[in-house]
Formats: sequence, structure tokens, C-alpha cells
Amino acid sequence: MQANLREHIEKIIPVTDEEFDFISSHFTSRKFKKHQFIIQEGDAVQYSYFVISGLLKLVYTDASAKQHIVSFAMEDWWESDFYAFYTKTKATMSLECLEDTEVLCCSLEDYKKLCDGLQKMERFFLEKATFGFLGSQRRILSWLTSNSKERYEQLLKQYPMLMQRVPKSLIASYLGVSRETLSRLSS
Amino acid sequence: MQANLREHIEKIIPVTDEEFDFISSHFTSRKFKKHQFIIQEGDAVQYSYFVISGLLKLVYTDASAKQHIVSFAMEDWWESDFYAFYTKTKATMSLECLEDTEVLCCSLEDYKKLCDGLQKMERFFLEKATFGFLGSQRRILSWLTSNSKERYEQLLKQYPMLMQRVPKSLIASYLGVSRETLSRLSS
Repeated sequence: MQANLREHIEKIIPVTDEEFDFISSHFTSRKFKKHQFIIQEGDAVQYSYFVISGLLKLVYTDASAKQHIVSFAMEDWWESDFYAFYTKTKATMSLECLEDTEVLCCSLEDYKKLCDGLQKMERFFLEKATFGFLGSQRRILSWLTSNSKERYEQLLKQYPMLMQRVPKSLIASYLGVSRETLSRLSS
Repeated sequence: MQANLREHIEKIIPVTDEEFDFISSHFTSRKFKKHQFIIQEGDAVQYSYFVISGLLKLVYTDASAKQHIVSFAMEDWWESDFYAFYTKTKATMSLECLEDTEVLCCSLEDYKKLCDGLQKMERFFLEKATFGFLGSQRRILSWLTSNSKERYEQLLKQYPMLMQRVPKSLIASYLGVSRETLSRLSS
């Protein structure tokens, strides 16, 4: 199971067996069932999660109780209410399992110890944060420049696996369109 | 002028005079006039820019020649077509001066040398990338959950200085609303 994490890290930086032992000592494993909440709005956010298997949705619920999908996460993705995680504030979003899910959890303290103890992990996290930022910027750009049909097609092209596993109603929420509009787009 | 950079870095990590000499040797200074382009679409993107003084707009032009403001940058902000910068691909956006502007330029090679040569700079850039990502995520959330009036008010609250310096037509483009809608919102 930790093998997934090693493979994921080694896409960016090679690590020795000894280094990987050090890395994995900063993670703990947890399993959740479909529909279980990993983070609930208002909770302290103790961990950043690396997904070993399963599927998650990060959800923001607005003042009128409408749910908005901020992101999905599946195998090899990192997920959390990152703002709350990094600033040690309460969660403003919830993280819920759409399938039975297994994650590796890393606390902020362990994240810092890991960066302090092994410089190449700081390089690894810098690369992940940079490309996370670039991904968000691309999504903003697609909101500014594309209509819902184009956004749907971009998503389908970029994450075909995701589209097979996520219910249509949630894809609609992620794209900010109604379920009916999505049915028209995907037919 | 480099003093701005030092002050900016020391908000996150303290540096000695010797360390700052090493840091500043990786930057070169350039001045641009209002309306000048720092990056044009199709260019190689050689630098990431730290703004000493002035104001920039990062613009994406869509297939129908409509301009979309991706972001603004003013004093103490970093700006570039970051995707093109990190992946060494051609610019898909342009970066233009809205005021006379002075920047410090750092190439990808110098950025890497800086991270390799001084671990605390890697920590600094990790922090900037992380909070850059969080800022983008907040903007996505505001697209999903807020109407144009709310987005306008959030921007006004978050960046009052920016709103005073940027023409209304560009604020409208950044918010994805028409100039007429913005006039109604801001009256």
C-alpha cells in the first residue's frame, strides 16, 4: 500500500529504501466506507490525505444549503481542506467518500518534519504545489473562456476515468450547471 | 530596490546579509513603460517576475479575440505565464504593463540554482506556491458560489488598492461580467 506512495514520489524524485522508510514513518493509514465523511465542515483539519484507492468529493455548502463540488480526488491524488489544514483553522468544506476509500494521512507537524528531515521531500512538495496552482489557474481560465459544453468536454478528455466513476449529478455540480443541462451536454 | 525583495522574503524566512547577496545574484532588474508587453502570446517565457513597483495584467485572448483577465499583479507580487515558464513551452497568455513598472527577473535555471544552493529559498517558494494554490482555490469557490455583485464586493474588500488603480473595464473582465453590469454593481 505504501508502494503506491513510493511510486508516486519517484515520478518526481528518486528515493532510497532508507529514505522511503523515513518518509513512510510520517504517514498513517486509514480506511473509510462509501458515504463516510473524512472531514466535516467545522472540524479541525488534522491531515492532508494521499488517496491509495477510492474516490472522494470536496464540497462547499453555501448559505442557502446548496452543495458545490470544489474537487474530486482518486488514486494518487492529494486532498484536504488545504486552507484549514495549512492555517490550522476550522474546515469550511467537507470531504466525503464516494466509494470505499483507503488513504495515507500526514499531519502538518509530520509534513514539516518530513521537509526538514529530507530536503528532497521539500522539492517534491514544491513541485506538487506548483502544479496544483497551475491546475487551478487552468480551471479559472476555463470558467472565463469556455461555455458549459466546452468545460464538460475538457473534463471528459482530461479525466476519462473520473467521468466513469462519478455520478452525473456531481459532475454537473463541479461544472456549475444543472443536471438537465449536463444531460443535454453528455447525450 | 532589492530591499523590497529582501523584505518580501523575510516575511516568511529570515536571511543573513551573505545569504541575501547570494539570493539577489540570481535576479536581474528591468524597467518597462505603461502599455509595454513583458510577455507576448507565442513567446518563450524566460522569467518569473517579482514586481518592485507598478501594475501588470495577465491576459488570455480566446479564439474570438476576446480578452480575459487571468490576474493582476502589483508591488510584492510574482507574475508570469507560469505554466509556460515551468514547462518551457510558448506563452498562451500575455503580460502587459498598466503603469510604468519595475521588476526583478528570475530564470528557471536561476530559480533551480537558488533552491539547490539555499534550502530556505525552497521553503520560501513552497510557501508561496502553497498559498498561490489556496488563492486560486478560493477564486474557483467564489465563481461556484457567488454572483457577480458578491464577487465584486469580495475583490473590493480583499484588494482595495488594486481597485483604485485598475480601470473599471478590466475589473469587469476579471470578474467575467460586462462593463455595464460592473457600473451597476459599483454605483
